[in-house]
Amino acid sequence: MHRGGSLVSPTIAYETWGKLNQNRDNAVLIFTGMSPPAHAASSVEDPTPGWWEEMIGPGRPLDTRRYFIICVNSLGSCFGSTGPASIDPRTGELYRLTFPVLSLEDVARGGYEVIKHLGVNRLKATVGPSMGGMSALAFEILFPGMSEGFVSMSSGPRALPFSIALRSLQREMIRKDPGWMGGDYPRDAVPLTGMRLARKLGMITYRSAEEWRLRFGRERTTSPDANGYGFGMTFEIEAYLEHHANKFTGQFDPNCYLYLSRASDLFDVAEHGGSVEIGLGKVRVKRALIVGVTTDFLFPIYQQRELAEGLGAPGREVEFVELNSLQGHDSFLVDMDSYRPLIARFFA
Amino acid sequence: MHRGGSLVSPTIAYETWGKLNQNRDNAVLIFTGMSPPAHAASSVEDPTPGWWEEMIGPGRPLDTRRYFIICVNSLGSCFGSTGPASIDPRTGELYRLTFPVLSLEDVARGGYEVIKHLGVNRLKATVGPSMGGMSALAFEILFPGMSEGFVSMSSGPRALPFSIALRSLQREMIRKDPGWMGGDYPRDAVPLTGMRLARKLGMITYRSAEEWRLRFGRERTTSPDANGYGFGMTFEIEAYLEHHANKFTGQFDPNCYLYLSRASDLFDVAEHGGSVEIGLGKVRVKRALIVGVTTDFLFPIYQQRELAEGLGAPGREVEFVELNSLQGHDSFLVDMDSYRPLIARFFA
Repeated sequence: MHRGGSLVSPTIAYETWGKLNQNRDNAVLIFTGMSPPAHAASSVEDPTPGWWEEMIGPGRPLDTRRYFIICVNSLGSCFGSTGPASIDPRTGELYRLTFPVLSLEDVARGGYEVIKHLGVNRLKATVGPSMGGMSALAFEILFPGMSEGFVSMSSGPRALPFSIALRSLQREMIRKDPGWMGGDYPRDAVPLTGMRLARKLGMITYRSAEEWRLRFGRERTTSPDANGYGFGMTFEIEAYLEHHANKFTGQFDPNCYLYLSRASDLFDVAEHGGSVEIGLGKVRVKRALIVGVTTDFLFPIYQQRELAEGLGAPGREVEFVELNSLQGHDSFLVDMDSYRPLIARFFA
Repeated sequence: MHRGGSLVSPTIAYETWGKLNQNRDNAVLIFTGMSPPAHAASSVEDPTPGWWEEMIGPGRPLDTRRYFIICVNSLGSCFGSTGPASIDPRTGELYRLTFPVLSLEDVARGGYEVIKHLGVNRLKATVGPSMGGMSALAFEILFPGMSEGFVSMSSGPRALPFSIALRSLQREMIRKDPGWMGGDYPRDAVPLTGMRLARKLGMITYRSAEEWRLRFGRERTTSPDANGYGFGMTFEIEAYLEHHANKFTGQFDPNCYLYLSRASDLFDVAEHGGSVEIGLGKVRVKRALIVGVTTDFLFPIYQQRELAEGLGAPGREVEFVELNSLQGHDSFLVDMDSYRPLIARFFA
């Protein structure tokens, strides 16, 4: 592991769409944001819609008639890949907090092991939104020359104190839930309250104030609490957060959440050589696309500009796109009309 | 009470500086943000520094040689004024959640009762930052003609869904703390965990990402946890939040926090007549100063502009100042070099 410790025979879960060509050089490797699984799009084996369904398929921006698309579940997550919720073969027990410190460099290496296993010689591109953008960047730094292109969306070269503060508070919400039990909660009784609170804070930081103003305004719910006499669901925005918290929790393992959240905080390109400039200087791609959103306050637009500028190099084509999408950090999941043409053009 | 219910002989705590003149028309009434007490500045009776120490005193922007300054502790708070942590004389028990729904209109009326009691004929101005700005605005709408001027800082004409979401989550942190006990916690064992989490989220929303980037960057603490192997204090920004959470909690009663927080959400000038425009049209001051900060995302700058524009009227002088202070919502407490001249000029 990047910061010490080791795993015995870890598993990396992945899904693929399309076919590897004869030259074994048409693969695209996608790293995910913090919480999604490798199921980025539907397939014959799993027809449920994926988290980037509209982006992957025949005739879609990531065209499966042309490219071999791979999406990995991050190491440390809980959707098939080894993580704190997996059994440590050395003890027969769940890792829980004995899992070594996780870094996005480890997540990147997980992706690397998958493409090696699949016999990929050279990647067309690595692609990542949010935390996935940092994992993809770590991949480009650790394995220079493997990939022709790099696509980063709503990400950045390092975690800054504002997002560290938010994630730190999310982790504390989980850790302070008595049900967390120092990480030793029973598998069928996770610290739901902490997870729900953390998810709500996540939802608040993933979208934008302006979107909510237009979408919810001061609309009241029809709940009996809506008269303001309780402290429950008075406003539509509160019901919306409640709905999303209910959907999320139960799926994601709390200890995995802690590890992945902390891995995002720890990420800093400057650790690769002494400065952001030197770290980014190790990237060897020929083309890069950096997309940011002005309403994103988790990975603010100036971080994306810093990334795009830092990747500038002779003979390299770097496109920096500043979107005004209303949906803030999550725009890459929602504002498909803006993202589809960008991704399609890059892969055309 | 504005939304129903009543209190028997409520108390409003206040402090004053300077002297009421013979015409009884040199008083300035200050409403506070959500958490401060009426102790805005030091005095002979209480020499500890107040929350707006640099602003009030002889020769200071709120010049006590000229003005009679009054600051009230909001109704519903716990620093002398009647609130959920006070004893209900009808039962001999603490109000707790039997306290009626609190509105900022009630806070405004509390201020009105104080000036009546003090024999003030006419106010030079009402002044309020943050929640206090909304309370002062409620005062101007409920008691038109009482006041010559109105000063609002980092406030707005209504609560919007983004800030409602944040406050709702803060309230949920407290309510989900098992120590809250449905509001019936013992007086010497408040739900500290929930209060600490809520305070940390408050701190995150009161300042700005840019301030923290410049001030803390990715600096590590020297705590044993700083190597990243725990989930505790790794980064300076985490230690900073911890420090502020420790300072705050224990002072503020959790039920009072819930009521004041909810009162902020419920505030909407449009309830006074049907629209923000009509509501603001009821204000009768001759001069208004509206100060906003571009880095404030709790009361964003466009809300301040909306307030300033809505107050525009023939023969009224409305000054709108957009500050670029780094400190976000809390700038009025910190960036004194920007605020002092503004307040001094208004009161000169």
